[in-house]
Amino acid sequence: MNIPDDKLLSLIQSHRTPFFLYDGDALRAHVGSILERLHPAVKLHYALKANANVTIAALLSSLGCGVEIASAGELFIALKAGYKAEDIIFAGPGKTESELSEAIEAGIGCFNVESIRELRLLEKVAVRSGVRVRAAVRINPDADLSGATIKMGGTARPFGVDEAQLDVFFAAQQECGHIQFQGIQVYTGTQMLKAEDIIGSFENTVRLAGEISLKYGLPVHSINLGGGFGIPYFTHEQPLDMERVLQHLNGLVEEATQRMAGVRFIIESGRYLVAQAGMYVTKVLYTKISKGEKFVVTDGGMNHYASAAFRGRRLRDNYPVKVLGGNKLHSEMPSTAEHSLRQTLREEVTVVGPLCTPEDCLVRKAKLPVIMENDYICIPNAGAYGLSYSPVDFLGHPAPAELLAAGGQLYVIREHGNRTDALRHQRLIQPELLQEI
Amino acid sequence: MNIPDDKLLSLIQSHRTPFFLYDGDALRAHVGSILERLHPAVKLHYALKANANVTIAALLSSLGCGVEIASAGELFIALKAGYKAEDIIFAGPGKTESELSEAIEAGIGCFNVESIRELRLLEKVAVRSGVRVRAAVRINPDADLSGATIKMGGTARPFGVDEAQLDVFFAAQQECGHIQFQGIQVYTGTQMLKAEDIIGSFENTVRLAGEISLKYGLPVHSINLGGGFGIPYFTHEQPLDMERVLQHLNGLVEEATQRMAGVRFIIESGRYLVAQAGMYVTKVLYTKISKGEKFVVTDGGMNHYASAAFRGRRLRDNYPVKVLGGNKLHSEMPSTAEHSLRQTLREEVTVVGPLCTPEDCLVRKAKLPVIMENDYICIPNAGAYGLSYSPVDFLGHPAPAELLAAGGQLYVIREHGNRTDALRHQRLIQPELLQEI
Repeated sequence: MNIPDDKLLSLIQSHRTPFFLYDGDALRAHVGSILERLHPAVKLHYALKANANVTIAALLSSLGCGVEIASAGELFIALKAGYKAEDIIFAGPGKTESELSEAIEAGIGCFNVESIRELRLLEKVAVRSGVRVRAAVRINPDADLSGATIKMGGTARPFGVDEAQLDVFFAAQQECGHIQFQGIQVYTGTQMLKAEDIIGSFENTVRLAGEISLKYGLPVHSINLGGGFGIPYFTHEQPLDMERVLQHLNGLVEEATQRMAGVRFIIESGRYLVAQAGMYVTKVLYTKISKGEKFVVTDGGMNHYASAAFRGRRLRDNYPVKVLGGNKLHSEMPSTAEHSLRQTLREEVTVVGPLCTPEDCLVRKAKLPVIMENDYICIPNAGAYGLSYSPVDFLGHPAPAELLAAGGQLYVIREHGNRTDALRHQRLIQPELLQEI
Repeated sequence: MNIPDDKLLSLIQSHRTPFFLYDGDALRAHVGSILERLHPAVKLHYALKANANVTIAALLSSLGCGVEIASAGELFIALKAGYKAEDIIFAGPGKTESELSEAIEAGIGCFNVESIRELRLLEKVAVRSGVRVRAAVRINPDADLSGATIKMGGTARPFGVDEAQLDVFFAAQQECGHIQFQGIQVYTGTQMLKAEDIIGSFENTVRLAGEISLKYGLPVHSINLGGGFGIPYFTHEQPLDMERVLQHLNGLVEEATQRMAGVRFIIESGRYLVAQAGMYVTKVLYTKISKGEKFVVTDGGMNHYASAAFRGRRLRDNYPVKVLGGNKLHSEMPSTAEHSLRQTLREEVTVVGPLCTPEDCLVRKAKLPVIMENDYICIPNAGAYGLSYSPVDFLGHPAPAELLAAGGQLYVIREHGNRTDALRHQRLIQPELLQEI
């Protein structure tokens, strides 16, 4: 997010809190810069799970991204957002028969099959639909990529087919006449910040693709290298050297395309594309002192941005936050002595949301500028796994809005929730109508 | 939940998974038994946050419970569920001005004020509305109740007014002509399993109420003792001796009502009332082996029942689960040798949901009966902090249904979610219409 503080404050003050704010210009520039540095044989797919806002998804589509979905619900959103069916990849270890059927109906580009059982189910549904479908196999590689924060492969995992089981997989694949084998996918971890870990995984995957092609006599049309590109959430973290990753990737791709005619590459990313373009914005309702500690109670918390509450852990970091003075009603006002004083005078404070649970803690005992009621607490890097990952209905507060700033305009891309949302799909059966035993 | 396995299986098989199933008969019997053992001067309030299903809430209302809400959204549900306004208590550290206004409009029974700032805000809104409102003060007591798993008092907390700050609070209270002082509330912790901890807290609160009445010359009309009644989630936990708690409570109340004429008592509970009446039910989509470990992939997981996934912790317990044979299509079928064999032959297994994240793990490496595809994995004690606490939209799967069994009938009290839910309140702005920089 590149919006200067005074501009940010004026944007914020014109809208009811809490909300997520996205910087569309920064998002365009960031994703555009990745796309233009990519080898032409590589397609970047947006992992919709990171942020399923349809306007954000549409913006990424317009820039040239494909999309990776993980449910029929995400298929629906991806199609609404304007992704062409052929640019949709369906991943996930628990695809149901009806989801496979829906995705076949839509004619999506590729299924990432995660087990032999799923392969057979996909074949069955494809036969019933009378069409041939494209599928790749997600492989759980033997190699452990130790740099990943959250390992998705290299160890016993519910994801993908073990490298050691590929003989059985490809034997089964031979019997599936309605499945066109596309290639392989490997996704080893997420939130990786070391370029060499990612490069190592990419190299391993390309090697594996070559071996498979040779061993099983199968043409590999696509190699999905996964992603796992991390962003620094904390001040002690170093940003990923993406330039180095991309240069190495492009070299790898150039070399492989010469060896394997017509092969295409895929990389996937959710967090790295959208996280830094987003910010969660809450307003301070109350400040109070308890047993000598200062607490700040805001109008939003773990129900909207669960990650920032570190899932109630006692041992936790704090995400960095930005405090903006909500009592300055106009951003046109020059910085006053009081403002600089408040920024200079820091005090230890705990910032909590409005929920009746100690888990709803956004910042624990951090030194922050002096916070007053009506100030704004803004949490950057909230564009990914923010709203989508949070228990929005917990305690019955309305869902937050989502705002998109682009070209000097502000767009409401999700309105606040309302009272009746909680009752959606519920049926009130009057107690006197319930059968007694 | 008292439904026998064969009956359970026949109920389950007639409905699409995943869903929450509640045993209305068990719920009625359980809550009824508490209510009939309570001293007439004590009112039991249901903490709606535990489960905001409107039919469940209505059932508890019909049995004679009041309700404790924590947002205007919960106020809306409570009124729909048929609670009388006077039986509604509004708690929470972050009540907004508009929430206070809505609750005043509804004429609710009591505001549990959590800070001096909130007291003043409540007075302001009451003045504007031209009515007098009833309020109690939530006190953060000096005493630490060490038995509570999650401490809500006794230490520095965002909840309530420190005992040491009561002088200031009551001085402010004197200036609030539109606030009728009702009494005090103390809520020290949740999920308490030791009767003596709860009794100790109750005694402390009654003592405090007496001291306040004496010191500030205020009649105390209501003493809200809180709750925190726990349930055993794990086999190593002993159930709370509720009979002992209630007997002691009734004695305390009898003694206090003789000293303080007309005083009324309140206890609150969410989890203890509803948790054990509920069960989360998923179906096995796939079984697979990875590096020698068996994995079972179900159609529901942390998106519906986040607590069971232990928030992605590596160090975690497992909730006990029940495995029911989904391949037996009719519950009328007698138990076969194969069935008993599968129950006897246990194997180590990890049960995961369908999400593409290692966090989505319902059972890690537990010895369970041999599980096959189409079997049901049922997690008991899921009636509280199940659906309400979970990130339902994560990865775009439809929200689960909620079913209520009562008197031999099965009622759908929440229908499954659908495709369009995720797009609710969203606005698709086509990228070409977004301003460029």
